[in-house]
Amino acid sequence: MTVSYRLSEIAARLGGRVLGHADARVSQVATLETALPGQISFLTNSKYRAQLAGTKAEAVILGEADADATGLPRIISDNPYAYFAKVSALLNPLPEAMPGIHPAAVIGADAKIDASASIAATAVIADGATIGAFSVIGEGCYIGENVVIGGHARLYPRVVVYHDCVIGDNLIAHSGVVIGSDGFGMAMDEGRWIKIPQIGRVVIGNDVEIGANTTVDRGALDDTVIEDGVKLDNQIQIAHNVRIGAHTAIAGCVGVAGSTTIGRYCLIGGSAGILGHLKIADHVEIAAFTLIGKSINEAGSYAAIFPFAKTADWRKNTVHLRHLDDLVKRVKNLEQHLESLNTELLKRES
Amino acid sequence: MTVSYRLSEIAARLGGRVLGHADARVSQVATLETALPGQISFLTNSKYRAQLAGTKAEAVILGEADADATGLPRIISDNPYAYFAKVSALLNPLPEAMPGIHPAAVIGADAKIDASASIAATAVIADGATIGAFSVIGEGCYIGENVVIGGHARLYPRVVVYHDCVIGDNLIAHSGVVIGSDGFGMAMDEGRWIKIPQIGRVVIGNDVEIGANTTVDRGALDDTVIEDGVKLDNQIQIAHNVRIGAHTAIAGCVGVAGSTTIGRYCLIGGSAGILGHLKIADHVEIAAFTLIGKSINEAGSYAAIFPFAKTADWRKNTVHLRHLDDLVKRVKNLEQHLESLNTELLKRES
Amino acid sequence: MTVSYRLSEIAARLGGRVLGHADARVSQVATLETALPGQISFLTNSKYRAQLAGTKAEAVILGEADADATGLPRIISDNPYAYFAKVSALLNPLPEAMPGIHPAAVIGADAKIDASASIAATAVIADGATIGAFSVIGEGCYIGENVVIGGHARLYPRVVVYHDCVIGDNLIAHSGVVIGSDGFGMAMDEGRWIKIPQIGRVVIGNDVEIGANTTVDRGALDDTVIEDGVKLDNQIQIAHNVRIGAHTAIAGCVGVAGSTTIGRYCLIGGSAGILGHLKIADHVEIAAFTLIGKSINEAGSYAAIFPFAKTADWRKNTVHLRHLDDLVKRVKNLEQHLESLNTELLKRES
Repeated sequence: MTVSYRLSEIAARLGGRVLGHADARVSQVATLETALPGQISFLTNSKYRAQLAGTKAEAVILGEADADATGLPRIISDNPYAYFAKVSALLNPLPEAMPGIHPAAVIGADAKIDASASIAATAVIADGATIGAFSVIGEGCYIGENVVIGGHARLYPRVVVYHDCVIGDNLIAHSGVVIGSDGFGMAMDEGRWIKIPQIGRVVIGNDVEIGANTTVDRGALDDTVIEDGVKLDNQIQIAHNVRIGAHTAIAGCVGVAGSTTIGRYCLIGGSAGILGHLKIADHVEIAAFTLIGKSINEAGSYAAIFPFAKTADWRKNTVHLRHLDDLVKRVKNLEQHLESLNTELLKRES
Repeated sequence: MTVSYRLSEIAARLGGRVLGHADARVSQVATLETALPGQISFLTNSKYRAQLAGTKAEAVILGEADADATGLPRIISDNPYAYFAKVSALLNPLPEAMPGIHPAAVIGADAKIDASASIAATAVIADGATIGAFSVIGEGCYIGENVVIGGHARLYPRVVVYHDCVIGDNLIAHSGVVIGSDGFGMAMDEGRWIKIPQIGRVVIGNDVEIGANTTVDRGALDDTVIEDGVKLDNQIQIAHNVRIGAHTAIAGCVGVAGSTTIGRYCLIGGSAGILGHLKIADHVEIAAFTLIGKSINEAGSYAAIFPFAKTADWRKNTVHLRHLDDLVKRVKNLEQHLESLNTELLKRES
Repeated sequence: MTVSYRLSEIAARLGGRVLGHADARVSQVATLETALPGQISFLTNSKYRAQLAGTKAEAVILGEADADATGLPRIISDNPYAYFAKVSALLNPLPEAMPGIHPAAVIGADAKIDASASIAATAVIADGATIGAFSVIGEGCYIGENVVIGGHARLYPRVVVYHDCVIGDNLIAHSGVVIGSDGFGMAMDEGRWIKIPQIGRVVIGNDVEIGANTTVDRGALDDTVIEDGVKLDNQIQIAHNVRIGAHTAIAGCVGVAGSTTIGRYCLIGGSAGILGHLKIADHVEIAAFTLIGKSINEAGSYAAIFPFAKTADWRKNTVHLRHLDDLVKRVKNLEQHLESLNTELLKRES
């Protein structure tokens, strides 16, 4: 079931300007290095323009600045990378899921499943849950009581959504995702932890993607909120009552502690952490492996990475961190000493 | 199925002293800011006493020190936060699971399932497993051969317990939890890793809660042990032969390496790590993002967090870490130089 | 179904030299401290030789250097730890899975399942998938369209393998593993993220083990590759287009970002991270909690761990990290000042 398109057909759908042989036909995307005849590639950075010379690609997607850098059939776009993404989606349509409910699925009373939706074998849809048009619920998924999932969702096998959560359109959730598990809330009472019931929900906007084995806890009292267009990578932990602003992207293994609000269009690097009850402004970029322990009120780029080294060097340098305060005092002493020596010498001179 | 209680009824069950209108009836908990009539809120810190003025709550839970800080119907407790937790549990009872085995569950030979237990659709209970009274095994759970699970457990959908593990009463395990997977043990033999069979079990006490996608490996030779009242957040990794002392709470994304023993009543912050074969005393608090590389013999609070900064500042400062040992030597040189200069000057003076 | 062997029988199978009573019969392995009669233990480090005196073990496995350190029945091996691993495998054979397809499994059209393979209840094998000889697919597993899994694989319950992935022989995959989920690829286009279809696969060699809840993303354009003999612990995240060299072992909670190549025989500590598009040489050892932000071209040991301390000490020392650049400048100033003072004094002297 390979599909192929002429460049002219692609431009008719996606915009852009065709240069060279507009009838060139492509059926797959590839990098410049690995592309074969019949495949379309792309160049996002003029710096790598030299790679155009050696490519076997049938056609390429280029920015305006590189429009004449090759004689290959080509599409010129303001944003070649985004254009490439769209071409790839065109050439790689998701396999269509058969509408309907597999006989080995289990459907609760009063579940409202759109006739165009697809419920796979061993999926369980609990009482009162709603599944929107053209949504696909994969094998082994569990959709809890009264959950609402919008249209065009794709839940890969083994996603769990706990009761009462509300999800917009176009959700992509990968295998192992858990949405709506209890937040980590408890009170110490005479030497024992008492569980605080987590009675909020998770509310997710439209166009959200959630990576494999990522977890999003339900709110303690109010809701945990993931706004439109948020993209979460794998193995992320979002604690209760967090709010993630629209179009923020978070890389793998990040942890966000409870009640923190993250702004819109933030970029958070892998394995970073954000403590609880903080507020992160819009357009904040956080480096990988960085712990954010205070609110950030200003857009910009933030980091806290310990530089790696050969273990012997690391050990030699790092030992002094335990005495940094002493070192600073020693430097201060030196400054004072030198200062008084100076004064002394000047005095003698006069 | 909303429940509601008069303050007097609550105090009769949970203790505490009612002040003001004891017949005030509440059906839900909420924060002071968001509470509506018919809801009960709480104040845990006198510092925020001013919030009492604006609340729409029907009633509040207060500490002794704030007993007269409002005229609202109120319950006075020594521990308002724990009291609130108990009230919330009263007002938000877990939905009762229907006792019995769903026809789409799969039950092994010789499984001993209490008649009051509930086994959901697509759950699999293997041969010889025991499920205690009133325990609920969610959809898609897998309970391995000869596993013993006590009473009143609640396993949310898609929990796996490997063979032979033993679990006490009142376990709460969230979706994606894996208990009893093989520890990471192998021996290098002529350029290839040989697997060391992991023949220990996981043994879990009473009143333990385990968060979504947390993993607890079985022991290599002896058992991995989680004592009573331990609370584990999401995405935690507990390696083989770890022992976690009673009532210790561990936040999300923490990793504990093999054969480490953690004391009782410890608090471990998110994304922290503890290396293997260590011993952590009781009542140790470990900050988020902190790696513990040596045993801790003394109760107290420990940290190792690199402070975050604007990336440009971080880069400017951090580059010197690779030369810290040189810097210390330079300071030492300065001290010696200044010292000999001093001696020299004194000599000349005399 | 306990099995037992005489030392002579073990040596006949696994090699090594028997000393003492060769008919001594053992049925289980244990540590020197916990071993009971009928059990065999081992000593890997002569330093702990004293422990031999107190053990109740029936027999022990020793290195050549310790051959005469006890009179117990014993097997002498060049690599006692690896020998112990082999003995343990002999004494603890995996429970045999019944060949065949459980009636509560769901099998797609054109799936090719070897007659000796075992497909458990609630497992789903999609259209066109291939399952090799003697492979065991656990409860709730999902094997996607056209996946190929070699022989002697053991997938514990709830493993997901997305479509088109290819896996060699002897895979062990623990519960919650996700293989072939989409990589985290998107392009920003006028304020919205556009998904880049992930059209590569995951290709896994022979003899690979993958720990619980570990995720391995499929490639964006080309494949993600895990070579022969790689061992991955729990909760690891392997991003798209990563390549992991043969016999590399990675501890729990590690994240490897996209398009990074890791060499052969590397050892990567728990919760470490490796940024994207890097190249790590063979035989590189990376400490726990260490972020690698540049390629490593040379074998050796690398680290970047912030040393932990009592929180009060940590705070006192760490505050200076924000002013390290100033401190270095102050030391430089002192050096110059002292230098010019020296020159001045010399001048006067002359």
